[in-house]
This record gives sequence, structure tokens and C-alpha cells, in this order.
Amino acid sequence: MKSAKVKIGLIGLGTVGSGVWEILRRHRDLLRRRVGAELQIARVAVKSKAKLRRIKVPSRLLTQNVEEILQDPEIRIVVEVMGGVKDAKRIALRTIAAGKHFITANKALLAMHGREIFEAARRAQVDICFEAAVGGGIPILRALREGFVANEIRSLHGIVNGTCNYILSEMAQHGADFGQTLKRAQQLGYAEANPSFDIDGIDAAHKLAILVSIAYGVYVDLRKIYVEGIRGITAFDIDCARRFGYAVKLLAIAKLQGSEIQARVHPAMVPGQSMLAAVQGVHNAILIDGDFVGEGLLYGKGAGSGATASAVVGDIVEVARNVSSGIAYTVPPLGVYAEKIAQARIQPMALLKSPYYLRFQAIDRPGILAKIASHLSRFAISISSVYQHVQKEGKEVPIVVLTHEALEKDIKKAMAMIDRLPGIRRKTVSIRIEEECR
Amino acid sequence: MKSAKVKIGLIGLGTVGSGVWEILRRHRDLLRRRVGAELQIARVAVKSKAKLRRIKVPSRLLTQNVEEILQDPEIRIVVEVMGGVKDAKRIALRTIAAGKHFITANKALLAMHGREIFEAARRAQVDICFEAAVGGGIPILRALREGFVANEIRSLHGIVNGTCNYILSEMAQHGADFGQTLKRAQQLGYAEANPSFDIDGIDAAHKLAILVSIAYGVYVDLRKIYVEGIRGITAFDIDCARRFGYAVKLLAIAKLQGSEIQARVHPAMVPGQSMLAAVQGVHNAILIDGDFVGEGLLYGKGAGSGATASAVVGDIVEVARNVSSGIAYTVPPLGVYAEKIAQARIQPMALLKSPYYLRFQAIDRPGILAKIASHLSRFAISISSVYQHVQKEGKEVPIVVLTHEALEKDIKKAMAMIDRLPGIRRKTVSIRIEEECR
Repeated sequence: MKSAKVKIGLIGLGTVGSGVWEILRRHRDLLRRRVGAELQIARVAVKSKAKLRRIKVPSRLLTQNVEEILQDPEIRIVVEVMGGVKDAKRIALRTIAAGKHFITANKALLAMHGREIFEAARRAQVDICFEAAVGGGIPILRALREGFVANEIRSLHGIVNGTCNYILSEMAQHGADFGQTLKRAQQLGYAEANPSFDIDGIDAAHKLAILVSIAYGVYVDLRKIYVEGIRGITAFDIDCARRFGYAVKLLAIAKLQGSEIQARVHPAMVPGQSMLAAVQGVHNAILIDGDFVGEGLLYGKGAGSGATASAVVGDIVEVARNVSSGIAYTVPPLGVYAEKIAQARIQPMALLKSPYYLRFQAIDRPGILAKIASHLSRFAISISSVYQHVQKEGKEVPIVVLTHEALEKDIKKAMAMIDRLPGIRRKTVSIRIEEECR
Repeated sequence: MKSAKVKIGLIGLGTVGSGVWEILRRHRDLLRRRVGAELQIARVAVKSKAKLRRIKVPSRLLTQNVEEILQDPEIRIVVEVMGGVKDAKRIALRTIAAGKHFITANKALLAMHGREIFEAARRAQVDICFEAAVGGGIPILRALREGFVANEIRSLHGIVNGTCNYILSEMAQHGADFGQTLKRAQQLGYAEANPSFDIDGIDAAHKLAILVSIAYGVYVDLRKIYVEGIRGITAFDIDCARRFGYAVKLLAIAKLQGSEIQARVHPAMVPGQSMLAAVQGVHNAILIDGDFVGEGLLYGKGAGSGATASAVVGDIVEVARNVSSGIAYTVPPLGVYAEKIAQARIQPMALLKSPYYLRFQAIDRPGILAKIASHLSRFAISISSVYQHVQKEGKEVPIVVLTHEALEKDIKKAMAMIDRLPGIRRKTVSIRIEEECR
């Protein structure tokens, strides 16, 4: 057995940081056997020493000055779990410049400044790991870089935001409406007081940017990812989906389309018997379709102290095994060795082809369905099913139409025209159908 | 970018071998980017050159003499995908002795002779990889060694035999009986002409031995694993399970029990809403419960040329990245660095505590249920539910009893006594219930 110690600097002692501390403490012997060296947290940087109640870190290890970590030549690995972007970026670049390895759980940091950080790491030939940034405890990034490395990834469908999946699962189970379910999620701590980051799909887009980067060995411009959240989904839509054999999920989707990549976050209908449909509550799952391996799915907890810290410590072990073997950068962060990593060519959303669920809100009078159908046919959008709720004539009713595959831009144009019809009472709701997820 | 070539010797060109050849051919450029070196199959050993129809391997690479691979100093990685145990073992040990890295998909080899092979690899400090041996294309071994490395594995529940899962899924879907469904599986190529290896649980036990080895960093004596196949399961049992909210799966189970490990393969009932219950057809899935990460599941194709070859090539990439970095044995095969790896202490099956589904076949006459219940209570086995099929009095009927948690040895004793009652017509069937799989 090797006997070296690997010294680690921990920056941040919140939910994730205290989980990391706890794992290294509780599994000290287990990890020594698994790493072949002892993992030692040599220093912990915190914003304020006063706030530390839950966790017993010896005070001699604590500092409020990050420099004490960055300038310590014995510290080989810096773990950033303090969150935020600006300071985290500075710390990342300083760490790399000091020739130390960098581990983070910070998806926003990498989605926004990944290129700069990855290029710095390549030049310095230090390891940079961020398994916890996507899918919490699910080892999806490692799977893309290593387990599925033999494959071209044809597509990737991820349930990567636990808040949205909790809300949609609850709405499906109890027929509750969105607002009420969001409130409940907030009470349970599954949603933030300001929930926009989650329910508007921004968090999922950050994670998708990282997934696309690794699946295809490219940089991704976050602004090119199409993002649509779940605010518009009603209990009726979910119930209707169920009648047609689907479940509604917020998905982060990447698909290879020739030399372009689709990268989009939006609610979608998936077959009710699929593995993705079985993912309930705050859980996450990522479905990978590789050209040789076929479909594979990784499922687990997407957040929480234990799961996220498990991923961070997994990264620590990987880097520490390398450090104690005297190597680095054996598996590059985006999975490819290249002097120059290309910018992803993201397919414009207007060119997406998909089947759609369309819900029109109309005054129920004779001829309205015919008018809708005629507008759809003007754009060569063909209907596969119709569902109309029985109501008293003259009342507002939802009219649901499922289409065969159609172009996004045609759907949008047809919707705009239909929304101007007399008798249409609200903006039409559209949900894309991801038929091929099994 | 690094520019070295890594030379590979391929032994076997059947389903898996030809898949490996095809991936390296089709993804040559992609893999060069991902490995940082070129992967080159320098030699292919086959039993007979005449049989090669499907795949175009240049004849100058073919040999019927394995020695040409083992003695070629330029070949750094030997890939054994020919199957069988005796010759494969000799090749493994010769490869390792030659200082080459060894990759195999051969679960029987490792389940039976793992200890000898792993110890040789440790002494020689060469890599030995076998991701394809368990779960086909699912990167479960890598996940245990790396992704979940921060955790003590509390339990592991695997659907690791596609043939059994296909048969049980079909029986559930069509209410068909076992024999008829097995025949259909054989016609479709999902079951062998001699299906015993799969349906009697032997294949699953081999895989479980490997999973336990890596999850706990131990050697496993295959003979200590409890093995029970699916021949005794009827369509009635599956339907009955469904009524009680369960699905029936053949599971490979490992559970940590203090200093002992449970290691058992048998049909089991899992909650109908669980992810494991959603695994249909020939698919495989492994549910891991880690003490920090919580429950994680990996799902995918358990067999087939593409999926298995994908796992083998994943191993090739891992080793090739190491070779071109000039290192080896950075992640040891069983996940732990140790001079001496211990033999697993497997808990005797008699000490298992589990809830049970019991099906008694009795002549329907007054008092039979009372007699059954009285025998169960003699062993302190308490009943949670009873289901009795309505039939004409005097006919043979199934009587189903679900128990609370009971000791395996008590269940066996009670069953033996009940089976001797007048009015009991057949051997009682018992299926263990794995309540905690989510």
C-alpha cells in the first residue's frame, strides 16, 4: 500500500462542504484503502467562523483568508464548494495557475466560464473535476468520459432539476395545480423562495451546457440553449398526457443532427412506460443513447448534502489516486485531447422537428375545431389525435390536438394565427413529445 | 495531442470480438481524440479462419496461434473475448506474466479464478479490466470503483440476467406460463437451447460474485452465494404480486450486515412503483444504496454485440490512456490498494430476515387456512395479508400468505411442516419480498 498523504484545501463549509468533511471523517480508513493514500483536509476557508454550528472542524484548520489555501505549497487539491460565480472564477484560475488540481460543484461557474477555466487547466496540465455539478450523486460525467467513451452519443435526455420533477410528479399524483404545488415545494425546502432559477429551466440549461460539452467534446455558448420552464403546465395537461400514454417531465435534451447539436430545455411528454416516466419526486436521471451501447440510464438523487458530497469526494479520490501516482490530466475534463476545442454548433430551435401536444382554449361553439385544423393544415401540420372536453356550449373549453412530426417554426406560426381567431381565449400551450425515450 | 500508438491483441472474433473490431474501425478518429493516442488492433487470434464471414479483418492480422499475441513485445493490451474458462485462464495469467494489460468480458473466468488472476495482476502492476462482465453496456463496475467510491455500499440489487428478466416481463404482460415463455425466448435468441445457466441463476451468481468483490474490496467464494432460479414462478404468482403492489424479478442481492455480507440470487418481489419494477425485457439494471449518495440506479442493455463491445472498448480506452501516460494500476481492479485482500464473510442464508410471499396449494376445505396459520405462528411468523382464490369446495386452490419479516430458517421449517399436512397438494412456493427497493 502506498503511504503518502494528499493534502486538500476546502473552500466553503455549507451544505456540500460539511458533507465532504463528514465523508472524509467517517470513511477515513475506507478511503485510505481505496485511494492508496491518506486524504487530509489541511485547511478550510469559510466566510465567517461564527456561523459554524452543525459541524466540528478543529478551529486551527479554519481560515477566512482563501490565500492561505492558494499559497500553501503542500495543498495539492482545492475543493470549491462555496458557490457564486465571480469569486469562484477567480479562485479557480488562481488554483490552476498555482499548479493545483481544482474540484468544484459549481455548475453556473462552468456553464458561464468553462472555456476559460478548461483552457487554463489544459495549459497547466492540472486536473479539473466537477461531477457534482450535474445530477448530484449520479456519476454521469464520468460515465460520458469513460464508460460510454466508445460511443458517439446520438442523444441525451436528462431530468436534471429536482425541483421541477418534484412539482410535476406531485401535480400528476394529486391533480394539484402548479402554484399550489410550488408553494408546497417551497415549504418542504425543495424550491427556493425565488424559484425562477429552477422552474424557468435556467439551472437545467447550465447542466445541459456541461453535459453537451462532455458528450461532444465542445464548448457551449449558454445563450444558444433554448430554455422554457414549467410555469405554463397545468394539471389538465398532465392528466391529458396520461390519457394519451405520456408523462410530463422537464427535460434537458441534446441530440446530434449531422454536424449540429440540438441543445434545449423544456417540458416534454415521454412515454408512460419509459424509465424516464418512472423517475419520481426530486430524483434526477439521464438517459443516454449511444450508437453502440444503445440506451442507458443513470438515476439517483440530484441534490442534497450527502449525494452532492459523495460526488465531490469521488472527484477527490480520482485526483488523489493520480496525485499519489505522480500523474495528472490522464482523462481530460471534456473527454478529448485537443489543442483547440471547437465551439458547439447549436441547431436553431426553429428547425426542430417534433410531434407536439397543443392545447387551445376556445369557446365551445360549432366550427372552432375545423378552423383550428384548417390553420394547422396550412402549415402541413398533420393531426394524430384530438381530445375535446365535453362542456356546455358557449363555455371556454380546452381542445387538445396531438400532431405528427412538425417543424417548430411552423407550429409557432400556426399557433400565432390560431391565437388570433375569435373564440380563442388564451395563448395556446404547446408541449413537445419525445417519442423515442424508452 | 499525444501521438503514440497503442497496440492491442484481440483474442476471439465472435459476437463481442467483432463488435470491438467494428467500434475501433468506425470510431477511429473519435477515439483518437478521446484517448490521445491511436488504438491499433495489431493481431487477432481466432480458432478457425474459415468461419469469418460477417467481418472484414485483413487476413495478415489473423492468426490461429495465441502465442503470436502473447509474445509480441509491441502489444501492450490483450483483449480476451473468446469465452470459456480453462484456456482463458491460461491466457490471462500468461498475459499478466508478460507485463501486458488484460481486458476480458469473461464473468465465469473471474467468478471462478478471480483471486489468482487479481493477485497476479497486483504483483505485476498491470491493469486488468472487465466492465463487460457485468451488466453488458452498463458502466457499473467503474461506478462502484470511482463514482460511488465515497460510500460504504449498504446494499446492491441487480437485474443482471436479461433472459430471466425477459421471461418474467413477458409472463407479467401476457399472463403466459413459464414453459411457453421460455420457448418463445429460445426462438427469439434470448435464451440458449440449454437455458439452465441463465434461468437457474448461475450466470447471475457469477456476476454477483464480481459485484460483491468490487463493492466491498474482497474475494468471494462462488459456492457461498445462495442461488435459486425462476423455474418455480407461475403466472399466478406474478399476477398475485401485482395485486399486492409488487413485480417479480430475478435479483442478485448484496447487503452489508455488520462484518458479514449477504450474497444471494433468487426471484424477489419489488414494489410496483420502483425503478427496478420498470425494467422490462432483456434490460439490466443495478440499484446501489450508498450511505451518503443514497439510492442510485444504472440501467441499460445487458448483452448483445454493441453493448458488450462498448464496455470492452471503454476498458481499452481506460488502459490506453494509462499506457500513453506511462502509468498502470492507478485504479486497482477491486477498488482497493492492499497487499492482502480478504475473503468475504458471507452470511449464512438461514439467518436472512425478510418478508415472504408464500403460496400453498391446498384442497379447499374448511380449516386448512387455520392449520397453515397455526404452523406459521409456531415459528413466530406473523401474517400481513392473505389471498385465497375462490373455487369450488374440494378443488385444489392456491392460498397466498404474505408475512412480516421472518427468519429464513423458520420459514423453511414451517414450509416443511405445512407441506406434510393432509390437504396440501404440492411443495409450497416462497418468494422473498425486497420492500426497500425504491
